[in-house]
Amino acid sequence: MAKVKKHPRPRAATPKGFRDYFGADVAERKAMLDRIAAVYHRYGFDALESSAVETVEALGKFLPDVERPNAGVFAWQEESETGKPGDWLALRYDLTAPLARVYAQFRNDLPTPYRRYAMGPVWRNEKPGPGRFRQFYQCDADTVGAPSVAADAEICAMLADALEAVGIARGDYVIRINNRKVLNGVLEAVDPSGSADRDAILRSIDKFDKVGEDGVRALLGKGRLDASGAYIDGVGLDKAQAEPVIAFLTSRGADAAQTLARLRAAVGGSGVGAEGIDELETIAELLEAQGYGADRIVIDPSVVRGLGYYTGPVFEAELTFEITDEKGRARQFGSVAGGGRYDDLVKRFTGQAVPATGVSIGVDRLLAALRAKGLGAAEAPGPVVVTVMERARMADYQAMAAELRAAGIRAEVYLGNPKNFGNQLKYADRRRAPVAVIAGEDERARGVVQIKDLVLGAKIAESASLEEWKSRPSQVEVPRADLVAEVRRILARAD
Amino acid sequence: MAKVKKHPRPRAATPKGFRDYFGADVAERKAMLDRIAAVYHRYGFDALESSAVETVEALGKFLPDVERPNAGVFAWQEESETGKPGDWLALRYDLTAPLARVYAQFRNDLPTPYRRYAMGPVWRNEKPGPGRFRQFYQCDADTVGAPSVAADAEICAMLADALEAVGIARGDYVIRINNRKVLNGVLEAVDPSGSADRDAILRSIDKFDKVGEDGVRALLGKGRLDASGAYIDGVGLDKAQAEPVIAFLTSRGADAAQTLARLRAAVGGSGVGAEGIDELETIAELLEAQGYGADRIVIDPSVVRGLGYYTGPVFEAELTFEITDEKGRARQFGSVAGGGRYDDLVKRFTGQAVPATGVSIGVDRLLAALRAKGLGAAEAPGPVVVTVMERARMADYQAMAAELRAAGIRAEVYLGNPKNFGNQLKYADRRRAPVAVIAGEDERARGVVQIKDLVLGAKIAESASLEEWKSRPSQVEVPRADLVAEVRRILARAD
Repeated sequence: MAKVKKHPRPRAATPKGFRDYFGADVAERKAMLDRIAAVYHRYGFDALESSAVETVEALGKFLPDVERPNAGVFAWQEESETGKPGDWLALRYDLTAPLARVYAQFRNDLPTPYRRYAMGPVWRNEKPGPGRFRQFYQCDADTVGAPSVAADAEICAMLADALEAVGIARGDYVIRINNRKVLNGVLEAVDPSGSADRDAILRSIDKFDKVGEDGVRALLGKGRLDASGAYIDGVGLDKAQAEPVIAFLTSRGADAAQTLARLRAAVGGSGVGAEGIDELETIAELLEAQGYGADRIVIDPSVVRGLGYYTGPVFEAELTFEITDEKGRARQFGSVAGGGRYDDLVKRFTGQAVPATGVSIGVDRLLAALRAKGLGAAEAPGPVVVTVMERARMADYQAMAAELRAAGIRAEVYLGNPKNFGNQLKYADRRRAPVAVIAGEDERARGVVQIKDLVLGAKIAESASLEEWKSRPSQVEVPRADLVAEVRRILARAD
Repeated sequence: MAKVKKHPRPRAATPKGFRDYFGADVAERKAMLDRIAAVYHRYGFDALESSAVETVEALGKFLPDVERPNAGVFAWQEESETGKPGDWLALRYDLTAPLARVYAQFRNDLPTPYRRYAMGPVWRNEKPGPGRFRQFYQCDADTVGAPSVAADAEICAMLADALEAVGIARGDYVIRINNRKVLNGVLEAVDPSGSADRDAILRSIDKFDKVGEDGVRALLGKGRLDASGAYIDGVGLDKAQAEPVIAFLTSRGADAAQTLARLRAAVGGSGVGAEGIDELETIAELLEAQGYGADRIVIDPSVVRGLGYYTGPVFEAELTFEITDEKGRARQFGSVAGGGRYDDLVKRFTGQAVPATGVSIGVDRLLAALRAKGLGAAEAPGPVVVTVMERARMADYQAMAAELRAAGIRAEVYLGNPKNFGNQLKYADRRRAPVAVIAGEDERARGVVQIKDLVLGAKIAESASLEEWKSRPSQVEVPRADLVAEVRRILARAD
């Protein structure tokens, strides 16, 4: 008889492209999101936590074919109960598609306009890469049902407040606003017959950040050689046609008035173009009235990201301070949030167009920015570690930890094998404990405890020769009754 | 030619068994979990947020068969890149299996013992029912790598602190502790040859909560007629064999000493039984030393839930106050948390047994308990709503909202169609706005604003005949410059 094969041990590994977050990372992100949520709440936005799982149908992906059921999303088919094939379900890939579904589903119970914020993980079934994960956080705020650009202006003001709330100083960020309608106006002026390939024009414009003015000019015309040596075919506009597009992209002036004047020239007689410029002007006025001047929020037609997706105003928050990149070059930190107006999202469900505008903060980007500025939440101190010298006295040690905790001090008893005291101190080190409490037989007999300042101890170990440390003992003996007071004194010193 | 069929509109619906959480629900749960997290942190526990997606292999479900790939979990197969079949991935169904994987994967970088807490959604592919969802929150705390029952005692003390931190008063809860080893000792005493069906005995004991002492006695013997009229076969122990099991379940005495004495009688000469009783005694001593007396934590061998799963101490937190159930009967609220020691979880991955103990709080149960006690977070007040009387003055209205927000007051401008003023007040009502600000042409000319106290207004509308309201105007006119001060005055009154 064949031997029954033993089941092999499973691999202890996160699936490819997924990761775990430990202690300090969880706390740091939470602190940042809590501050942002407080700002959103103050603006009248309500939290929404939608289901992580949606029907594929509601997400706007059509029934995936059988060969590649997971293209872009993580999807699976429900088991059938009735003989009919079950629904396809999927993990949400962003927070906007679920908002559209929620608004369509609950629109009779929700206020109109509906201001909501959402923070949580989303999932993408994409090839993971360095720093690119298949589960990551998004943080969105949107207003649904408000046609007025006052809603767009409000989102921009709120975004500025949120950035300042997490610690980005005024002057270290700028929110730039553009408008898809102005671009539409420019295209109308350039190509009134609609004979040019507008998608191709949009794709060329979208490269403005990377290839600059001359690059876009080439892409709109005959094409250009890209960095990899490949020749990219151009849209084929003649020079006169391409210039208004370039003029649009580079129309930012010294102030809003000058920018708007240049834009008016670029759109010629286009109605939609004029409407877009009026909207930008209104947004600038509304923000100015609330004290958000050009030091924080500017009209900048060079913002191209999302211009293909949004239907009206488009915004982007950029951090303007310099960081040193992985190649040692100084560069601006760049974009941490973006958004705009998208008026057709709910229509898929209801047939009725519902105006909507919103912004999404790149949670990991903003966290990285805070760290780059030294504004990341300082890693919370580890707990005070009460060491175990006599196994039979565990109740005493637990009582010490309980007293410290009752005084609001983070504290724990060492619960590993206490035999090797060195291991206990190594443990305290790994826990980044600021203080260790030591009480053995001798201390018990004399009614005292030893309190070891591990922060000071580490400093002395680093530079033992320095005179200044010699006079400061890193370990003190105090009466048992003074445990809490002495630990508190040392912690206050460490701050 | 056949007409191209238009794609039908997608249904705007959460998938069956899933739900969305809105404003107040999100805030209420968050407030509760934040308080619990603060307690856990003070005990030296670190946050862990593991990936929501695990390999099916790591979750401990073997490769699902092709017919029912989703039994119990939501699972899907990764696309293959190499020609080999892709991994099966699944959404986590609890927070314990991921902890085991994380500990096995990162054990060289984690402190030992490793204390961690985790809060987040888990997913179950089960038939949904009333109040039973396929995505729900769990809130766990576990200590991995600590063999000492001091770790179990600590978890119980921390659980008591957590319940009090969210608002459950001392006296309204009790944490009950049992020990699987004591039961093992009883079974050894009852059936030294191991010839009885121990799983069947465990299943009978597990019904103790439902069928009581006589019911378990019958199930251990010949069997019994259950409520549905079906006859449940018994284990077939004779009366003398069954009695020590019953004695174990009913051994709770007036105090710990009496309970322990009764247990010692029940286990006879069993070594493992004696070990289990010693553990319970140690736990009681440790807790007593920290001030957790029998008013909060008791040894109670009638705790049977989880006795089949855990390998050592087992705990359960029960709320002891009465609520009125759906049938109008008064009953105790019941269990809100449970846990225990499970020493084999990590072994699957590494081959080495790692001691672990922990507790899981039923988030929805505890929230329901807080609401039943009137301790649910009072729904946060809605924002002050600045109404729009003159469309062209949007900048003024936005400036008013900005001033209120700068003073820390939640405020928003009405951004729907302002034409029908009644709609604006209906909106304010739906937002549960405490105050509406009204400033039309006349107010502008006179440099004033109207401030409407909507809370008072609603009271007056309810009982308009009462004299007391007549003297209190629900709307006041103040100079524009006094907007913030007057709103603040009204909000202070509403508190």
